[in-house]
Amino acid sequence: AGFMWDVAEELNAMLVFAEHRYYGESLPFGNESFSDSKHLNYLTSEQALADFAVLIEYLKETIAGARHSPVIAIGGSYGGMLAAWFRMKYPHVVVGALAASAPIWQFGDLVPCGAYFAIVTDDFKKSGTGCSESIRNSWDAINHLSSTDAGLQWLSRTFHLCNPLKNLQDAAMLKSWLSETWIDLAMVDYPYKADFLQPLPAWPIREVCKFLKDPSLPDKLLLQNVFQAINVYYNYTGEASCFDMSETATKNLGQLGWYYQVCTEMVMPMCTDGVHDMFEPQKWDFEALSDECFRLWGVRPRPSWILSMYGGRNISSHSNIIFSNGGLDPWSAGGVTQNITDSLVAIVIPDGAHHLDLRSRNPCDPKSVQQARALEVHYMKQWIAEAKHQH
Amino acid sequence: AGFMWDVAEELNAMLVFAEHRYYGESLPFGNESFSDSKHLNYLTSEQALADFAVLIEYLKETIAGARHSPVIAIGGSYGGMLAAWFRMKYPHVVVGALAASAPIWQFGDLVPCGAYFAIVTDDFKKSGTGCSESIRNSWDAINHLSSTDAGLQWLSRTFHLCNPLKNLQDAAMLKSWLSETWIDLAMVDYPYKADFLQPLPAWPIREVCKFLKDPSLPDKLLLQNVFQAINVYYNYTGEASCFDMSETATKNLGQLGWYYQVCTEMVMPMCTDGVHDMFEPQKWDFEALSDECFRLWGVRPRPSWILSMYGGRNISSHSNIIFSNGGLDPWSAGGVTQNITDSLVAIVIPDGAHHLDLRSRNPCDPKSVQQARALEVHYMKQWIAEAKHQH
Repeated sequence: AGFMWDVAEELNAMLVFAEHRYYGESLPFGNESFSDSKHLNYLTSEQALADFAVLIEYLKETIAGARHSPVIAIGGSYGGMLAAWFRMKYPHVVVGALAASAPIWQFGDLVPCGAYFAIVTDDFKKSGTGCSESIRNSWDAINHLSSTDAGLQWLSRTFHLCNPLKNLQDAAMLKSWLSETWIDLAMVDYPYKADFLQPLPAWPIREVCKFLKDPSLPDKLLLQNVFQAINVYYNYTGEASCFDMSETATKNLGQLGWYYQVCTEMVMPMCTDGVHDMFEPQKWDFEALSDECFRLWGVRPRPSWILSMYGGRNISSHSNIIFSNGGLDPWSAGGVTQNITDSLVAIVIPDGAHHLDLRSRNPCDPKSVQQARALEVHYMKQWIAEAKHQH
Repeated sequence: AGFMWDVAEELNAMLVFAEHRYYGESLPFGNESFSDSKHLNYLTSEQALADFAVLIEYLKETIAGARHSPVIAIGGSYGGMLAAWFRMKYPHVVVGALAASAPIWQFGDLVPCGAYFAIVTDDFKKSGTGCSESIRNSWDAINHLSSTDAGLQWLSRTFHLCNPLKNLQDAAMLKSWLSETWIDLAMVDYPYKADFLQPLPAWPIREVCKFLKDPSLPDKLLLQNVFQAINVYYNYTGEASCFDMSETATKNLGQLGWYYQVCTEMVMPMCTDGVHDMFEPQKWDFEALSDECFRLWGVRPRPSWILSMYGGRNISSHSNIIFSNGGLDPWSAGGVTQNITDSLVAIVIPDGAHHLDLRSRNPCDPKSVQQARALEVHYMKQWIAEAKHQH
């Protein structure tokens, strides 16, 4: 959220970073918080929004001079959804919201379930000749090799895995670990060295694609190149001795709590077809998710709840929300990328990955993100002026 | 809700009466629903609103031709609050709301806690010379008499009580039973014979006041008149053989569930001073309420929750809500009686009691309620036209 620090002084603002319940240190039942669905029961987006409402009222009552200060909600990704929903549900608490890379429409059947992966694929296609095709061909190469013990051993060695592959299930894990890596790379394809999920070079997909130019190579040569490619992601600092597939980069972002939210209300349908994307075809399987949720916590997800609660595409009666999205970001598939009304505005940053606009200013910033930030500041100033005028 | 039947055809409308959870037959845990706070835990206004959202979506999906029909929320009293809040929180589900006699501001310190009783008093003052003064003087008369056993016996006999008064506590019950009766009369002071809380004559307060012309009578004569007066309320049909103070007229309106709501979120401060009103002075005592709630269910009310949730006076960013209030209705004290914006409009019916506008058309309707209903229909047609235009 470097952007907030960059513009705080210009907006004469106090910055408040409120931790979402059940994340970080905000554990309502301490170590028991994730123990079962009884303790997890209070982990919902609605409860989180209510926390923020009560917190802001408390701050206004207790901080000198804050009582009449207009408040703006700012967030990225899930935090961006929360920012938008907060303005929708508590317009008396915040005068507006900046919802960066917020896929508020990645629910129900509002967008095609494959759009997300098509964008990931497009990022790789644009970043080097033969790149997305190499990845598409890698799945069959892994399938061929994992059909024999010798092949499994070769894969384990080649990918420097800490725990060798023993069977087809392990090979499937390798594939999903690789898939997740490509997806994460699409989210963090920033124009300069960065350290969001992992320490990475500028335009990391370009670096990755330097190893993936020839999709027609034989299986082993192709997969050796794939290893070089993911090495950019997992070993940019050169420190990794072996790779543990159970440790993916996004793990630290509150994985267990988030999965409980997926298992209750945050149901985002996703699918691949291997044609419009570079992944192995996989249909959206709600039943499988539901059964897994029931197995883990005895709960089943409600796939239409978020739509009932927050309105889906029918949000035009709300106001003062900026939806910003990066053209490189797969999450833009479920985002608002066209203006809805004069005060529900969309900003698209063609060269931006996942909420690039919320990052600190950088000399390598593309023009598009500079303009996006300027427009965001413009709208925020306008909301503040209007709120002060009403007083 | 005769009004809804009266205008349904003109609006080409389907009427849906959705029962609020924990009221009537909508008991989520059957006979156990009120057994403890664990079973009562799901009785909140937020949960009720979510029920209505899901219900409306279900009806739109399952009833032929309903999918694109604009929906309007209509309610009176607590139901009026729900109607207003429903439009605020679920503007994607309803295009507007008619909130009749909805005291959405009877919370926190938004209105003086004595305003409600000042209106009750005013109704009696306007309905007959000496009327409110007689009632004001009746409390001391009861206090005098209840200081002796003979006096208590006399009171029991005079008020035809099924269970004789035995002590000062019983006498206090008599007083609160009388107070509640005056309040209820103010709510149902309709211009024609009606049967909302009790079967009653037209303008019942006028009838009551015919017995309360001389406030300077000695105690016993004054109280005999008070008995004649409440007899209008409790025995208009002449069938009552004795009066049971534990059976007040509002009891059947889901009293226990409502009290749980008062004990959690619906905290409406009320007070009397005996100067601006005709009641015995009684300060608002939040602690007493809180202790009683804790004793009953182990819960304590959150007096500012409704304000945090629904915005208090700061609701101008919403739209398409009619707030109608009757000038005779004590609940108008906490209602919205002035326009907030072009589409958050107030309608005041000077001669109206509690949501008179929602009652069926009647030849004795004052002009003011006829005009109110016409305006309500006008706005509803406008919302429907706008919604259809957007499609």
